[in-house]
Amino acid sequence: MNSLSTQSYKGSRDYFPEDKRLQNYIFNTWRKTVESFGYEEYGAPLLEPLDIYLAKSGQELAGEQTYAFQDRGGRMVAIRPEMTPSISRMVAARRQEMPMPARLYSIANFMRYERPQRGREREFWQLNADLFGVDGAIADAEIIEMGHANIINFGAKQDMFTVRVNHRQLINRLMDGYLKLDIVGASMMTKLLDRKNKISAEEFKQQAVEIFGSQANEGLPKLAEMIGIKSVNDLPEELADDPSVKQIREVMDLLVKKGIKNAIFDITLMRGLDYYTGTVFEFFDNSPENNRALFGGGRYDGLVGLFGVEPVATVGVGLGATTMQQFLEVHGLLPQLSSHTDVYIIPVDKESLPGADTLAQKLRAEGVKAELDITGRKLDKQIKTAAKKQIPFAVFIGEDEIKNGMYTVKNLAESNEQKVDFDRMITIVKDRRYDSDDDDSLFEI
Amino acid sequence: MNSLSTQSYKGSRDYFPEDKRLQNYIFNTWRKTVESFGYEEYGAPLLEPLDIYLAKSGQELAGEQTYAFQDRGGRMVAIRPEMTPSISRMVAARRQEMPMPARLYSIANFMRYERPQRGREREFWQLNADLFGVDGAIADAEIIEMGHANIINFGAKQDMFTVRVNHRQLINRLMDGYLKLDIVGASMMTKLLDRKNKISAEEFKQQAVEIFGSQANEGLPKLAEMIGIKSVNDLPEELADDPSVKQIREVMDLLVKKGIKNAIFDITLMRGLDYYTGTVFEFFDNSPENNRALFGGGRYDGLVGLFGVEPVATVGVGLGATTMQQFLEVHGLLPQLSSHTDVYIIPVDKESLPGADTLAQKLRAEGVKAELDITGRKLDKQIKTAAKKQIPFAVFIGEDEIKNGMYTVKNLAESNEQKVDFDRMITIVKDRRYDSDDDDSLFEI
Repeated sequence: MNSLSTQSYKGSRDYFPEDKRLQNYIFNTWRKTVESFGYEEYGAPLLEPLDIYLAKSGQELAGEQTYAFQDRGGRMVAIRPEMTPSISRMVAARRQEMPMPARLYSIANFMRYERPQRGREREFWQLNADLFGVDGAIADAEIIEMGHANIINFGAKQDMFTVRVNHRQLINRLMDGYLKLDIVGASMMTKLLDRKNKISAEEFKQQAVEIFGSQANEGLPKLAEMIGIKSVNDLPEELADDPSVKQIREVMDLLVKKGIKNAIFDITLMRGLDYYTGTVFEFFDNSPENNRALFGGGRYDGLVGLFGVEPVATVGVGLGATTMQQFLEVHGLLPQLSSHTDVYIIPVDKESLPGADTLAQKLRAEGVKAELDITGRKLDKQIKTAAKKQIPFAVFIGEDEIKNGMYTVKNLAESNEQKVDFDRMITIVKDRRYDSDDDDSLFEI
Repeated sequence: MNSLSTQSYKGSRDYFPEDKRLQNYIFNTWRKTVESFGYEEYGAPLLEPLDIYLAKSGQELAGEQTYAFQDRGGRMVAIRPEMTPSISRMVAARRQEMPMPARLYSIANFMRYERPQRGREREFWQLNADLFGVDGAIADAEIIEMGHANIINFGAKQDMFTVRVNHRQLINRLMDGYLKLDIVGASMMTKLLDRKNKISAEEFKQQAVEIFGSQANEGLPKLAEMIGIKSVNDLPEELADDPSVKQIREVMDLLVKKGIKNAIFDITLMRGLDYYTGTVFEFFDNSPENNRALFGGGRYDGLVGLFGVEPVATVGVGLGATTMQQFLEVHGLLPQLSSHTDVYIIPVDKESLPGADTLAQKLRAEGVKAELDITGRKLDKQIKTAAKKQIPFAVFIGEDEIKNGMYTVKNLAESNEQKVDFDRMITIVKDRRYDSDDDDSLFEI
């Protein structure tokens, strides 16, 4: 038989301990951030009926990018490509009993069949956080504030990124009343604006001309004028009193009060998914090396109602772990993460193994993470393994140590050692922990 | 359009916050246990080439129970039904660089197309922990000790469960040299013994007769005799010196030294998966209400080598979260888990919302999990929501509180309240945390 390939499935990643540590650092920071706002974790199934994506996720996502197949019982299912339909279904299932407002989050993996590229994987991990049961700017502002805190809490500064805010109703009014596009033209224009920064100005203009068709002469200048609007105050008069504009103003005001200085109104911000109904927003990286959308979200008041229950006002945000990692890399915000293991216990000879095992048990009972070398190898080989694993301390156990209860603790990074008793050993090895799990402080804005 | 169903996909579960809290309690206890032994977390892809399961997982699992399908690029893939092949592939991919011995764990979901029943779901969550690079009883004993600690650390006592130990080589020798079965007969007998406790004595005998065929007259008494063997000392003389028997003795001796009093030799313990090569073990619940296998594992030295690299001695264990939950329920070991959120902030009127928002920000910066009611509802409705969410404390914010910096903190479970300053409020709400995350002590054997 030929040997099997060691490659992971295309577009998916193997997370070796050093990779997983970094992913966990991101997950833990997110978890602490959203829990600090009172959001509670839920879990959703990996598979859903394909229907729930066809209903509202848009043709590209539901039709072309899902991992959809028939199960052995003939059901058409898909590996979830996003969380919003699942959590909407879950809220609908508990529409009566669930205390409202409900603040819910999850950290989960998703799959989309796309061409893998930098920052885009077929299997990817996201934080999703949604606020159910509160309408209006105050809820939108909370979700944006929380998205903001999800970056700030890694030690980021506000000038490293920008929050762009728009409103789906305003987009609709612009497409219809201002640019005079019908529903098909509006949909195409929305997608074109979504791609605006990824294509050339020439290409953009050419495609806009195609969308306007016979109306291009009137449409193009209006489009150019629209793109030039940088503030809600510059909107055409007939839109100034639109409820959507009022809501954008309110959201922006609330963000300023919350101390958020990097939020702007962006009339070209679309958001591809069909289900948004109100405020939409995206977080953009300001770094020239990574000038791209980090994540986004918005209001989608109609999704829960699709499951045959009374609709619920909903606003949510979704953050990808790989995109976040790239942001942190570009801005030099990734900490050095060593092993979680506190101490590597090294028996100096085979006879000391049982005593070393007992010491390991005693340390573990005190909450120390203690790995025991059971190979019977020479000392230098054991030390090398500890260093290669980036474990901060080694403890040597021989006949003397077992008898006297005094232990040599070697700091492997600093290459110094000290002879201490059991209690002191615990203090030393616990004191160096970097782990964000062991500390619940968060950065302030 | 008809409304979509709120049902989750058959055999999978929605984890609402109270369910997820419980699952996280199990995950966190496991995580702390295995990390206390120096195991490091990894993550593996959701999809693998179907080949890697066909190679060694056995026909039932790979052929009949996988969620296998062709991706849009024509690759035959499967949603992982187990972790062992994935982690073996990953270790093979880093065969040269990875420091050995390697201690690795993951907590992940899996899917198998089986008939859903109590304790068996199509989508299920498992802890997998494996020790790579150490041969022999000492490594087997560490894995069993860690499995043991994974139950004990929930507060279980040793008399609540039993560890059963056997050895794949001994099984092979019994089938071949003792029961005189050929390879097909041995495979059928192994499966029959696996089902022994699930079928009647009559049915067991009848199927044994079929397997022995013309040899039934000699075979049946030998099988009965074999099943009667309760100690390695009672094994037939020709097996007494077999290396497998020696290894079982060593494992049992080491377990006793580690303080494990509930491990027994069980000659009828098989373990279904094809890849085991040495020691095998299972943990059984002793409760009459739940008298069943909880989880198991064993040595599989051949898997890494299938990926075209030098083989690695490996022993591992896998624990299911739902089975663990049932064990904890039956033995009354499940704690009452309230919300993670520390405090629900209740503005007494609309004018107090901005001040309440500022207080929420200040509390979050101190690591307090603070949910803010932004609905503008009446006080009693806000309090009801906090109680329904099982949040332990409510804080009321009005004009006075904002001015004086003195806050009324209401303990919602005990229905008492006190007026305190900001620092005291932080102490009060943090003091009641049950969360095992915030505390790293573990139970001792």
